[in-house]
Amino acid sequence: MHIRIFTTGGTIDKVYFDAKSTYEVGPPNIETILNELSLEFDYTVESLMKKDSLDLTDQDRTFIYEAVAKDPADKVIITHGTDTMVETAKTLAGIQGKTIVLTGALKPALFKITDAVFNIGCAVAAVQTVNPGVYIVMNGRIFPHDKVRKNVRLGKFEAVE
Amino acid sequence: MHIRIFTTGGTIDKVYFDAKSTYEVGPPNIETILNELSLEFDYTVESLMKKDSLDLTDQDRTFIYEAVAKDPADKVIITHGTDTMVETAKTLAGIQGKTIVLTGALKPALFKITDAVFNIGCAVAAVQTVNPGVYIVMNGRIFPHDKVRKNVRLGKFEAVE
Amino acid sequence: MHIRIFTTGGTIDKVYFDAKSTYEVGPPNIETILNELSLEFDYTVESLMKKDSLDLTDQDRTFIYEAVAKDPADKVIITHGTDTMVETAKTLAGIQGKTIVLTGALKPALFKITDAVFNIGCAVAAVQTVNPGVYIVMNGRIFPHDKVRKNVRLGKFEAVE
Amino acid sequence: MHIRIFTTGGTIDKVYFDAKSTYEVGPPNIETILNELSLEFDYTVESLMKKDSLDLTDQDRTFIYEAVAKDPADKVIITHGTDTMVETAKTLAGIQGKTIVLTGALKPALFKITDAVFNIGCAVAAVQTVNPGVYIVMNGRIFPHDKVRKNVRLGKFEAVE
Repeated sequence: MHIRIFTTGGTIDKVYFDAKSTYEVGPPNIETILNELSLEFDYTVESLMKKDSLDLTDQDRTFIYEAVAKDPADKVIITHGTDTMVETAKTLAGIQGKTIVLTGALKPALFKITDAVFNIGCAVAAVQTVNPGVYIVMNGRIFPHDKVRKNVRLGKFEAVE
Repeated sequence: MHIRIFTTGGTIDKVYFDAKSTYEVGPPNIETILNELSLEFDYTVESLMKKDSLDLTDQDRTFIYEAVAKDPADKVIITHGTDTMVETAKTLAGIQGKTIVLTGALKPALFKITDAVFNIGCAVAAVQTVNPGVYIVMNGRIFPHDKVRKNVRLGKFEAVE
Repeated sequence: MHIRIFTTGGTIDKVYFDAKSTYEVGPPNIETILNELSLEFDYTVESLMKKDSLDLTDQDRTFIYEAVAKDPADKVIITHGTDTMVETAKTLAGIQGKTIVLTGALKPALFKITDAVFNIGCAVAAVQTVNPGVYIVMNGRIFPHDKVRKNVRLGKFEAVE
Repeated sequence: MHIRIFTTGGTIDKVYFDAKSTYEVGPPNIETILNELSLEFDYTVESLMKKDSLDLTDQDRTFIYEAVAKDPADKVIITHGTDTMVETAKTLAGIQGKTIVLTGALKPALFKITDAVFNIGCAVAAVQTVNPGVYIVMNGRIFPHDKVRKNVRLGKFEAVE
């Protein structure tokens, strides 16, 4: 089995720069996390961009769409910032015949306490088991892309009717 | 959504006792791991036993069977030692109408580098998405209980025909 | 033996707020770190302020000075942001009869990879062993307060003549 | 400044082997820990042996003695199992003109919660600041080698008169 992974940035990849006393988006942590594990599937990781998801433009989303659409893989995981994850998911909804799972983290993967590894585990299992379509996998749930929103106040994703 | 979790011991719960310079099975780490996350489902954790899976007896497996069978939940995760995880899974195969996922870890959850959190993420997603039956979720895969073995030499689970 | 600990903020206590996609100064991590250890000395921790050290004012430094000067302890550790740690140390130089050690971190204590715990270890040993005076303990060295600077480009403290 | 580091094994270097469901002494963690830090001193690490300290023989202690005695460095840190750390320290007491610090850990360095990094920080500061002699640096204290014992029941080192 093969899983194709694209990374776009977001909190999951945030690093802290002492020189500027600020954070920035760093290298994709999903690759580091998966490389530490002993896995019974193949995967390839490609970084499409390194952005806070609030900074993603229509052009960026078109770029993500095209990368996913033209890739031969039928199982795709995308790591993405949480603030506009749902918006990007909607953009990808037109792609047929693929199971596309967007995930990310509410706390950076480089923190001692982070949801990144758990979320990636959920995403890896979900992309193998659910029907083709576009999904958000966060907070331990697999949400169809058109039935989910980020509740910013609670800092979690929740189902909407 | 509710997930019922039973713990039985195994490497995932191994702790190190300085006094004896040895490892023993400690409290269930799945509870600590899930409690640190912000989750959109309910769960309850019950420790059935704290054993290295090589030490599990037929009586222990009957005890696990009965706990799972009589529980009203239809989504069940069991954390278990890896050496006899497949054997316990076979014992549970007679239970109807439930999705039962066994998982564990090859490196203790208390280690800096461990597969425990990733495996639990996989198990949480799998138990929501696959049909009723008994599964082993390890190394990033969801194996039907009768199509999997632990490859002790490689230290990983793999599919068998 | 008793060590008195004051905290003022800085990178060591930086947390990440998803809601704002930014870092802020959180609760003092030195207390959490020491509480996880089994120690053969007593300590008390008091948070004087929670500030990035670039934001410290003369008034803040007077406040720190007075807290240290009036405290009966003769062994004092202060956690502090690195950018103006040397400046605060100079302010405290007038205090007689106490060993005062300033430390902090270049990477937040909540990160998986951080210098916080190592630096606190150095500070705890230094405050017990060096003569009264004011010291910066960073990067594995014990610098007299008037013989050290932060090399911002290299991201480390170094001796000056 | 240069610090010479010798490693001998002990809990600080314990790893877990799934294949045997047991722990063994692995590679020296002090090197990994120091390499992750940005330090203002030089150090070299040499592994003398990889043993649980209960298994150290008189011959092993002679070997350690000779390695330390013939080394030109005047600042020496030795990582060592805790159970016979005091015994080895006594053996080294005849070496003149060097500050020799023995340290280790009560919980393996590879655990999420460990005293290894803190202890190494204490040892690095102590070896720079105390007079020549042989010391045990554990539990946040610097003990002269002839005024300390391990309290096995409490799992910590404590001063003796």
